[in-house]
Parts: sequence; structure tokens; C-alpha cells
Amino acid sequence: VKTPQELLQGLSRGNRLALARIISKIENRSKDLGELLGALYPLTGTAEVIGVTGPPGAGKSTLVDQLALEIRNQGRTVAIVAVDPSSPFSGGAILGDRIRMQRHFGDSGVYIRSLGTRGAHGGLSHATKEVVMTLDAAKFDTIIVETAGVGQTELDVLKLAQTVLVVLVPESGDSIQVMKAGLMEIADVFAVNKSDRPEADKMVKELITMVGLNPHDEHSWMIPVQKTEAVRGIGVGEILKSIGEHQEYLQRSGKREAKAEAFLKGEVLDILKERLQQTVADTWKTHSGAEILRALLDRKMDPYRAARLMSGEGS
Amino acid sequence: VKTPQELLQGLSRGNRLALARIISKIENRSKDLGELLGALYPLTGTAEVIGVTGPPGAGKSTLVDQLALEIRNQGRTVAIVAVDPSSPFSGGAILGDRIRMQRHFGDSGVYIRSLGTRGAHGGLSHATKEVVMTLDAAKFDTIIVETAGVGQTELDVLKLAQTVLVVLVPESGDSIQVMKAGLMEIADVFAVNKSDRPEADKMVKELITMVGLNPHDEHSWMIPVQKTEAVRGIGVGEILKSIGEHQEYLQRSGKREAKAEAFLKGEVLDILKERLQQTVADTWKTHSGAEILRALLDRKMDPYRAARLMSGEGS
Repeated sequence: VKTPQELLQGLSRGNRLALARIISKIENRSKDLGELLGALYPLTGTAEVIGVTGPPGAGKSTLVDQLALEIRNQGRTVAIVAVDPSSPFSGGAILGDRIRMQRHFGDSGVYIRSLGTRGAHGGLSHATKEVVMTLDAAKFDTIIVETAGVGQTELDVLKLAQTVLVVLVPESGDSIQVMKAGLMEIADVFAVNKSDRPEADKMVKELITMVGLNPHDEHSWMIPVQKTEAVRGIGVGEILKSIGEHQEYLQRSGKREAKAEAFLKGEVLDILKERLQQTVADTWKTHSGAEILRALLDRKMDPYRAARLMSGEGS
Repeated sequence: VKTPQELLQGLSRGNRLALARIISKIENRSKDLGELLGALYPLTGTAEVIGVTGPPGAGKSTLVDQLALEIRNQGRTVAIVAVDPSSPFSGGAILGDRIRMQRHFGDSGVYIRSLGTRGAHGGLSHATKEVVMTLDAAKFDTIIVETAGVGQTELDVLKLAQTVLVVLVPESGDSIQVMKAGLMEIADVFAVNKSDRPEADKMVKELITMVGLNPHDEHSWMIPVQKTEAVRGIGVGEILKSIGEHQEYLQRSGKREAKAEAFLKGEVLDILKERLQQTVADTWKTHSGAEILRALLDRKMDPYRAARLMSGEGS
């Protein structure tokens, strides 16, 4: 068993085994996680964190892999975190990760890791946040967090990114659907992928119109809309350029710090919630916890009063 | 402004306006919610709570409306809660609810309400739980909670149901996809809807095989697989019969109380989490909160230490 100090030393020397160990500890909510991540935190703060989302079949993974290749061509390192709240599976050993790594075979400047729920009830966005902190501390220049769909967990995950790329395909349809899915609110850059398809230009036009309809002034970020064909690598450089411009915009406008604040406030809240959850689970196991539960089941006590009792406030 | 007492009196007299007021208070996290729901809780415990989920386009709403008609034919009352985590819209006044109500026009034994996120960050499953408690206290015999997709919020919402009906269509595809979506784990009854389509029998067979592959003994509930054509009302009675059998199974096996325990534990935890969130949000606004945030941004303090400080534990 390695000590947190040894793991951190390994991490800063670029040791992939140390990195994998720390990520496992995050997933398993290891006892020494507080100590480990507390010590790791001062090493963070240099990575560019990009979120990528879009409907299933939009070609997100292909585009992300192409972005990774292009980032490597520019001499920067990149880590990809693929978050799938509908999958219980996690881990570098699973097939999907290995297939994807083949594109970057032998390149130690690329790291790919998938994260599933693994029964970590509601904790996936918390775990993702801590994995991103770890990759940041490991000095990856760019961290791409890729997520499918637009459920609450996915939106939570995207909140930890500085720049969010939303990938659509012409078939993913009309503007109303895009609005409904809430993608408009979270997008910093739009990619219209598979842009060789008919309807691509129509969709680009619609998106540009929608962007223009959003309330804005001369200081606003106008979401760029880029056509891509990820399988052929077309448009990938333009996407990276747009992402770079958005990063500069964040810096210039002071919004980078605002995002860092939101990230940190979220992390502190997640830590406190996790501790609360543990405390409450422990209380149910005690004699007085069992009594409260019995009274609840018999409707002699209501959940609000039980909550007051469990937080030590008396009845 | 009505007092909680007046609202509760209205609720137990079947007053729909009182019901709507209480649900609005739940959505708006009104200050007197604890008092109101605390007083309401002793009135709960008689409703049968059914969850319905499945992929988009499976015909869930149509099937739910048919189930409601059939339940009414049996002389029982029914409330439908349509939960959509991807929609910010809630409320009885919205178009969807009104269109659906037309099928049950003039029938005070049916109540339909949709719930969206309304910015209630992460709180949708909590709000849904409290809406179900309210409808239970209003003495609806059956409460159907309908949700789309299989994101974390949807799964949380379904946990509050006693019986979960999963609606699939032949096109929703092969067993692997069903497994991946985690539907197998949560289903108590399967409906293969639009069963006039080719492939329906194949899908039914696959599902039955999958059910049989699950570890089970003579005391296990074997998930029934029913063919339905919701638009023509075919198979609806059989679904209701299966749901009834599952309810009897829960009673007989003692699992009904286990589900009630899980529901109550979840509700108490949600209440405590909501209070924690409020306390933490208030702390950030104080002078010492601002100092902690600055130290975090400057990486002179880590989030774990900040969490300890904010919970009053000292450094």
C-alpha cells in the first residue's frame, strides 16, 4: 500500500500507475481521500478543462479523439474523461477505453479514462470533479470531459468545465428540440458534425439565428457554430481555435475566476453532503435511529421532525 | 394567504385548489413547507404508487392514460405525476397537462400534474417525493409517476414507487441495450407496447429469457412481460392485473415495508441535504466565507479543509 505522499510524488513524476491508483481511490471513496486530495489540490489550477456533450450518435467520441490528436500535434498533453451516468462500469481496463487508446498507442501524452456510476449513488459528478482535479495536478495541459445526454448528472458534470462544446448532427433536429434539451444554455461552442449530410447548412443557419436571438451586448461571448466531419478530421482545427478564443474570453472577462469559484463551492458542498450522507446512514443503525424509523413507519413522527432530531436539534 | 391548517382541511375535503397550492409550495420550497408536510404526513400511507418509465417514443403517456381510464372503471381514483428532468416547465397550467386532462374531462377522480426542474438544482426527485406524499394524503387510490429516460434523476424518482412498469417497443432494440440502460434492475413489470409491429414476439421472448436468467428462487418475483397496444387499449387490463399481483407480492413478502423505509430514509436525507445547502450558501456570503473562498482560489487552502471549517470543526 502506497502512502498519499508516495502517490503524489508518483503523480507529479508522470507515473500512470499512481494516477490510476488515485482515480480508483476516488471511485471507491477511500478513507484517506480527504488527505490525498487536500495535499494534491495546491498542484492544480493550470489545466484547460473542456466539456463535450451532445445527443447519442452525434459522433462525440470520434470528434474528441480527433481533438486529442490535434492537441498532441500542437505539443500539448491531453486527458479524456468519458462520463456515462447510465453505465455501472468504470475503469481503465474496460474494452471501450482500450479501443480508444489504440488511436493514441504508445503516446504517453494522452490518457483516457471512463467513469460510470458503480453504484456511487448521485456521486458521479462529485467523483468526476475530483478526477479532473487529479488530472490537473498531474499537469495535463487539456482535460476533456465527455458526457452523453442532458440529464441532471450530465449537466452537473459539464458545470465543471471552463468551455463546453456541444456536438449536434443535422438529424438531431429542429431548434425547438435544442432549446428544450437545455443545450443552448450550456454551449460555448457548437459543432455541427457529419456536416456532409444534407440539412447541415440549414442547421448551421438555425443555430446562428438562435445565438443571435440570445440577449447580448458587445461584451458577450457569441457562440461560434462550426461544421465538422470528425471521421475525416475536417473542421477539428477550427473547433480548437474557437475553444482557445473562448478560454481567452474567460480570462479577459474575469469569468474564469467566476467558474473556478463555482467549481470550488460545488466541491466543498459535495464533500459536506457526502459526510452528511455517511453520518445519517450511521445514525439509522443506532438504537435511536431504529426508534425514529419505527415512529416514521407508524406515522407517529413526520420526516421533518425526524430530520431535526437526527441533526441533534431536539424535537 | 391560507394557513397550513386550512390547506390541509381543503386537501382532505378533496379541494383541488388546496392540492395545487400545496404542490406549488413544494416546487417553490416555501418557508412553511416543513410545517405543512409534517402535518400532512400522518394522512399518508394508503396509496398504491406506480412508476412508469421507458425510452422516448415508447408510448408511455398513452399507456398511462389508458391505465388511468381502466383504474377509474374499477371505481378507484388516480393521480398522474409526469416528471421531466430535461424540462424547466412545471405546473397544471401548461399545455401538455391540459391536453391530457381532456381524456378525463369532468372526472374529478383523475388528477394530472407535470413536474420539471424549474431551476430546483438536483431537487426534482425530492420534490416528486413530496408531491407523491401530498397526493397520498389527498387519498388518491393510485398514484402513477411517469418519467422519461434512465438518467440518475429518473432512477431516483422511480425508487419512490412500489411497482415499476417499464414500457418498451420492439424497435427499442436488443437485450444488450435494455441491460445497459439498467431497466432490467428496476422493472417489476414489462410492457412491450406497439405490439402489432413485427419483432414484438421476438422481443417478448428475449425479455422472458432475460428474466429467467436473473438469479431467482421460488420466493422471487418473476417479472411478467405483457404485450400492449396502448392506442387501442389492448393489454391494459393485463398490465393492471400484473401490477396488482406485484402489490400483493410486496405485502406478502414484507417488501412493502422495506420500500416504505427506503422512501422515508430518502426523504429525511433530502430534507437534511436541502438545509445543508442553504446553510453553506449563507456561509459563502459572510466575511469568513469570503476569506475561505479567497484562500481556496489562491490554493492556500484545500476544499477538504474548507469543508471542515464550514461545518464548524476548526481547521
